[in-house]
Amino acid sequence: MAGSQVNEEAIRAEVEPLAASVRAAAPVLALASTGRKNQALRAIAEALDAKRAEILRANERDLEAGRQAGLSSALLDRLMLNDKRIDGIIEGVNQVMALPDPVGEIVSGWRRPNGLEIRMVRVPLGVVGIIYEARPNVTVDVAVLCLKAGNAVLLRGGKEAINANIVLADIMRAAITDAGLPADSVQLIRNTDRATARAMMGLVGYLDVLVPRGGHSLIRTVVENARVPVIETGEGNCHLYVDYNADVKMAEEIAFNAKTQRPSVCNAIETLLVQRDIAPGFLPSACARLAAGGVEIRGCPETVALFTPAKPATEEDWATEYLALILAVKVVANVDEAIAHIARYGTRNSEGIVSNDHANIEKFTREVDAAAVYVNASTRFTDGFEFGFGAELGVSTQKLHVRGPIGLAALTSSRYVVVGTGQVRS
Amino acid sequence: MAGSQVNEEAIRAEVEPLAASVRAAAPVLALASTGRKNQALRAIAEALDAKRAEILRANERDLEAGRQAGLSSALLDRLMLNDKRIDGIIEGVNQVMALPDPVGEIVSGWRRPNGLEIRMVRVPLGVVGIIYEARPNVTVDVAVLCLKAGNAVLLRGGKEAINANIVLADIMRAAITDAGLPADSVQLIRNTDRATARAMMGLVGYLDVLVPRGGHSLIRTVVENARVPVIETGEGNCHLYVDYNADVKMAEEIAFNAKTQRPSVCNAIETLLVQRDIAPGFLPSACARLAAGGVEIRGCPETVALFTPAKPATEEDWATEYLALILAVKVVANVDEAIAHIARYGTRNSEGIVSNDHANIEKFTREVDAAAVYVNASTRFTDGFEFGFGAELGVSTQKLHVRGPIGLAALTSSRYVVVGTGQVRS
Repeated sequence: MAGSQVNEEAIRAEVEPLAASVRAAAPVLALASTGRKNQALRAIAEALDAKRAEILRANERDLEAGRQAGLSSALLDRLMLNDKRIDGIIEGVNQVMALPDPVGEIVSGWRRPNGLEIRMVRVPLGVVGIIYEARPNVTVDVAVLCLKAGNAVLLRGGKEAINANIVLADIMRAAITDAGLPADSVQLIRNTDRATARAMMGLVGYLDVLVPRGGHSLIRTVVENARVPVIETGEGNCHLYVDYNADVKMAEEIAFNAKTQRPSVCNAIETLLVQRDIAPGFLPSACARLAAGGVEIRGCPETVALFTPAKPATEEDWATEYLALILAVKVVANVDEAIAHIARYGTRNSEGIVSNDHANIEKFTREVDAAAVYVNASTRFTDGFEFGFGAELGVSTQKLHVRGPIGLAALTSSRYVVVGTGQVRS
Repeated sequence: MAGSQVNEEAIRAEVEPLAASVRAAAPVLALASTGRKNQALRAIAEALDAKRAEILRANERDLEAGRQAGLSSALLDRLMLNDKRIDGIIEGVNQVMALPDPVGEIVSGWRRPNGLEIRMVRVPLGVVGIIYEARPNVTVDVAVLCLKAGNAVLLRGGKEAINANIVLADIMRAAITDAGLPADSVQLIRNTDRATARAMMGLVGYLDVLVPRGGHSLIRTVVENARVPVIETGEGNCHLYVDYNADVKMAEEIAFNAKTQRPSVCNAIETLLVQRDIAPGFLPSACARLAAGGVEIRGCPETVALFTPAKPATEEDWATEYLALILAVKVVANVDEAIAHIARYGTRNSEGIVSNDHANIEKFTREVDAAAVYVNASTRFTDGFEFGFGAELGVSTQKLHVRGPIGLAALTSSRYVVVGTGQVRS
């Protein structure tokens, strides 16, 4: 206990100066012109292209360490970089470069009866902290999004990708310096001890926001322990409700896509709710298609009766975010029962209805409380790129500040500029 | 220690069911029509008018207890209600009733290349918790603002106003019921033990946001200890900078107003910064006027040389939010020194410049990081009513979610409604 105490203090003494250096860079970055920031992004894209060999060598060391440590092949795949993936990272930088600069936008403005002119202007948040897990591309994605919005960023990636992360951060810092901005606009914590993540949660006065990006346990730990402002991301026990008069073929395509296109992500569905009247004409074929796609079906008794390979679902199934090729299926009486089920078990991420009943669609979109509610479309679209934001820092599942994909606008704050001619308050 | 532990648990057992009742009311309120919510507000205004005698009797008990407890006359004045103040409370309810309903507003909307139509819709936050101090009018102000934005509210006022608060909450609950909305849309914690405030900070799952409204120590305690999302309010070490070519008369009026019109509030100035060239022509007269208004001047050596009644300022003065008739005064070389001073000592609330130099004004409004930056106007305008928001829950000094006056819009979140024709993600 005393040992861990000492360790925590040593770690804080290591993290705090890094945070201070990022804090010091923030005001310079906040005032940087769009041209200057884009110049930095262009320099980053060019340097990533020029230093592929170095990046791949560092990634090879991570992969070797991962194989030694017995990482799963799925995790090793997430960790792995190759020329095509580096192309993807560079393409991401170019996309962010092409986005309009959010800083300085006059969000709204009005004149008061006393003649005061009030303008609400978009300004950077200041310093963004991110704690993330295996994929090294996040290091670049997140840094360039923060830079474009005029924010300095303190990165703390996972130990699996540390060698690639160090090389990527060094490349970005050199490129930023070449563009005439402070190197410390991007700072990576190289010590991947768990205590460095804990230290970030206590960086009051240094971080304007901390975003955890990763699995359930990381997010819970940050939300429950951070003393700096946090944006909560990522959990999703999502549902698709197939209404009585849904286009059966459309419903099947959407269910299949929302479950199987990438089952490990937060906007994939975990439960399919089916209106009783349409169930006989929809469920057997839809479940057969899903099963053929490798999906294990866990159903309510009516589902099992209609699709006998289904396993019986338990109460726990309704509450579980599988993040795997498993789908819970339940027959419900109507849209009200679907909405009540979602209110009880959903995690307010992405929820969908397939229907051709106007009143039911209106009810569903008004009453279901979630970051994104879909009508006749796959829940898989809850994503910054798909929404047209160019990129994202994650998907916010909280209600304050930003809900849904975290794009450039969510990385800004506002400032009121009030212009008068000598007004005083009476 | 064990005793306080037991107490904390007993208090939690008392507060949690109240929070649960508010949570249960929230979905009903979230779907209430504008007409229904305004009907509830009208019923509240009428009931407050009809039950004046009851309110004043309860307030008299609070005042008597306050006198017994030796409260200062300033505090007793804040606590005191009379017919005129009840008129003011009713007028506030009527103003909020007249404001447009923020819920359901389509904030933005666009169509994606794949045909998906994305609409960002304003929705209520859900449950708002407020911890506040002496003034009983806050009980009504805050409740009606929350109701109008479709939020249920859990109130925890100070012990000084408890008798009036109980009567006001009961009146509102009855009026809300008459209007056909759940009484538990407004719930007051009647136990004013400190532990009830601490219990609120831990109401994870019940509160969507907690707003502390009161003095420095309350706000710090909540920000540092809450496990629910918080909006930080209220601190303000604010400055007015008088530039070299300012209109001297205008600068004097603004300085006098910003310091003396209501010195106890967060947007009053605490330090006056004066450009060196204008100091001889401005400071002696401005300081004399302030001193005549009862303001104690604490100046840098140059200020003391120009206005000999001034006391010498110490380093501590630059960092102090007096909230009283004391003003620190410093002569600076130029706008850059003023901006640097504000960056070092300011608390990012309200900052002002009086100038007729376009470049300096642009520099000041771009570089000073604060919720509101004023040009040729008093800093005292940072207020929901003065901004045209009708009312406010406080002034946010944080950067996430809302910065500046917390009006109806800040009491909402958003939901994306995505409408397709069978789109799936590839």
